[in-house]
Amino acid sequence: MKKVLAVNSGSSSFKFKLFSFPDEKVIAKGMGDRIGLEDSTFSITLADGTKYTKEIAIPDQEAAVSILIKDLQKYHVLKSLNEIVGVGHRVVNGGEYFKDSTVIDKNKLQKILDLSDFAPLHNPPEARGIEAFMHVLPKVPQVAVFDTSFHETLDPVHYLYSIPYEYYEKYRARKYGAHGTSVHYVTLEAAKMMHEDLSESKLIICHLGNGASITAVKNGKSYDTSMGFSPLSGITMGTRSGDVDPSLLQHLMHKTGMSMDEMIDVLNQKSGLLGISGISSDMRDLKYNKKPRAILARKIFLNRIVRYIGSFIAEMGGVDAIVLTAGVGEGDVGMRKAIMDSFKYMGVDPDYEANETNGQKFITKPDSKIQVMIIPTNEELMIARDVVRLTNCATLA
Amino acid sequence: MKKVLAVNSGSSSFKFKLFSFPDEKVIAKGMGDRIGLEDSTFSITLADGTKYTKEIAIPDQEAAVSILIKDLQKYHVLKSLNEIVGVGHRVVNGGEYFKDSTVIDKNKLQKILDLSDFAPLHNPPEARGIEAFMHVLPKVPQVAVFDTSFHETLDPVHYLYSIPYEYYEKYRARKYGAHGTSVHYVTLEAAKMMHEDLSESKLIICHLGNGASITAVKNGKSYDTSMGFSPLSGITMGTRSGDVDPSLLQHLMHKTGMSMDEMIDVLNQKSGLLGISGISSDMRDLKYNKKPRAILARKIFLNRIVRYIGSFIAEMGGVDAIVLTAGVGEGDVGMRKAIMDSFKYMGVDPDYEANETNGQKFITKPDSKIQVMIIPTNEELMIARDVVRLTNCATLA
Repeated sequence: MKKVLAVNSGSSSFKFKLFSFPDEKVIAKGMGDRIGLEDSTFSITLADGTKYTKEIAIPDQEAAVSILIKDLQKYHVLKSLNEIVGVGHRVVNGGEYFKDSTVIDKNKLQKILDLSDFAPLHNPPEARGIEAFMHVLPKVPQVAVFDTSFHETLDPVHYLYSIPYEYYEKYRARKYGAHGTSVHYVTLEAAKMMHEDLSESKLIICHLGNGASITAVKNGKSYDTSMGFSPLSGITMGTRSGDVDPSLLQHLMHKTGMSMDEMIDVLNQKSGLLGISGISSDMRDLKYNKKPRAILARKIFLNRIVRYIGSFIAEMGGVDAIVLTAGVGEGDVGMRKAIMDSFKYMGVDPDYEANETNGQKFITKPDSKIQVMIIPTNEELMIARDVVRLTNCATLA
Repeated sequence: MKKVLAVNSGSSSFKFKLFSFPDEKVIAKGMGDRIGLEDSTFSITLADGTKYTKEIAIPDQEAAVSILIKDLQKYHVLKSLNEIVGVGHRVVNGGEYFKDSTVIDKNKLQKILDLSDFAPLHNPPEARGIEAFMHVLPKVPQVAVFDTSFHETLDPVHYLYSIPYEYYEKYRARKYGAHGTSVHYVTLEAAKMMHEDLSESKLIICHLGNGASITAVKNGKSYDTSMGFSPLSGITMGTRSGDVDPSLLQHLMHKTGMSMDEMIDVLNQKSGLLGISGISSDMRDLKYNKKPRAILARKIFLNRIVRYIGSFIAEMGGVDAIVLTAGVGEGDVGMRKAIMDSFKYMGVDPDYEANETNGQKFITKPDSKIQVMIIPTNEELMIARDVVRLTNCATLA
């Protein structure tokens, strides 16, 4: 059995999952936390559920990688580093350059850094994570898997903004979307559940995590998506605003004296559910809260989901299935019910009993004109699969 | 017969229509152009079609009003100024303060100026227009009719943005919408055509002029609308961008060195159809143009209309009729056809022959599940009607 690592490097965190192939089992997972800060910790959980956590200095991503590699051997997860056939890295923005996942060399690493303009909080630490693995495991292929690649199939009509065209030509100003790896995984699972190939299908995937987006998937390909140039726009999120009238930002900047960078920070970090409710960015904290602004936050969240689902049904000229995934999609019974009820007029026939519990399944009745299902997402597995696809697949199994 | 003036005062223009009541006939109309600039002109057209145009210095709105009043007597439109029972003024933004049209006094005039933050290009000249009439016709009631009032019925779930709630409390940061007077007029006409009262109806009104918006009208009341805090957001317009990811603006400002005010100017004046096509902001110039970017501009315009109609169908849980109005709605056969075709999946059954010509009518077949109709808008008449409603109606007719 060969092993594949899937890695998500953030500015101060480092998450990993180690898969065995071809059985796609998780044999270890964990994270380094507070990297570059005081009180950093590293934890690893083995296949049998044993979890080891330690306080240890982690000055940078390279240190995190070194600790990981040592622990994998120390806890006998690996007999030899040679078992690792490749490492897959989540990268948020691949721009128009990276149309698919790819094995990374020095030039491509630089390209990921060059694209930092499009994802200033994400691409730099992700590039540092790749670089760290290149140092620590120089013989192992490093594969970048881009959150934007699945949206590569968008038509210019959907990805261009109605702004001077030269901004697209000069600055690649366009919609890129995000969550593509999750949406791709969920799309493939949906096809299995529906016993359909994807060539004649219209799906809407609602990825409702702390970051949240809606994607229209037509004939297996991303057709339109709610996130735009950045992951800020679209529906209401945990702390992100989603869509806002630009003139309102101008107004608020004049009133408060904020700069554009400060304004955007507010829209990224203090808005969304947190901004409306004043209580929390986490839907689990708002779910049973009876304060008016907590209820309002839930209603607005639902409304923006309904708006985008409606938009995408209209764009595709119909829909076969709506899929709910990520935190809220996988775990919020009430929100799932509210979404389904909103589309009864289109022929959604909810199976409320099925909806009462979580897990991958249909939550509409068998004859429902539009199916709705829960599909827990698995971005890490999708990343690992891409590593397998791109690195010497023939030697596996 | 009593006479009512409907007036639209812009930064350098002054448009008027004089109606007789109760027959609602236009007995004179015209405009002052290039007010405060060189080569200003004043024109008036009488009921019999005779048009008089002259070059005349018009330093300000008050001068325009004086010329108008003189001309109305000179061309025997009025025997006496006493025939004018009231003057109605279009005002773009009434904020949360003006929930309905109202007779203006000095305090309310100041309030309109205070709301200029919300419509900096519109409210100030409109206030100057009202002030000019107060001077020239001191005994005649001046009525302000707000583009935002019809949207007064929006629920907070639809009008609030997902930003810190205190911005709403402190700065009234919310969706106001626009085109309300047009949408209200068209809604009443639609009810007549459908022989329905409005209490159980779901309409979507597409006001597709140089400024363009989509409004959901549920049970006769505005339920949601595409324009937001300002008339900049929503669908693609002649020169306005509609919705844009705020992060993209930050990116473009960094790349070009533009300030936020300059960026917003670009979004207001150089974007939309003009920005995409590089040819014109006027759909009539793009309609038969075969250049790729002209075609692209039309496709994007259509797509944004379809997105919003889809959103609002979903929000209302269905739709009975879609109404097309203003320049493109009243005159663009191809765009009307494309909009109808986009909703065939919902049961729109187009009457292509009816669609070939303009004018107020149904353009779907009688059995169409969703009706689509053309209704030429008439904001001026709606303004004049509000004057009649608010000024001593009993003495009329």
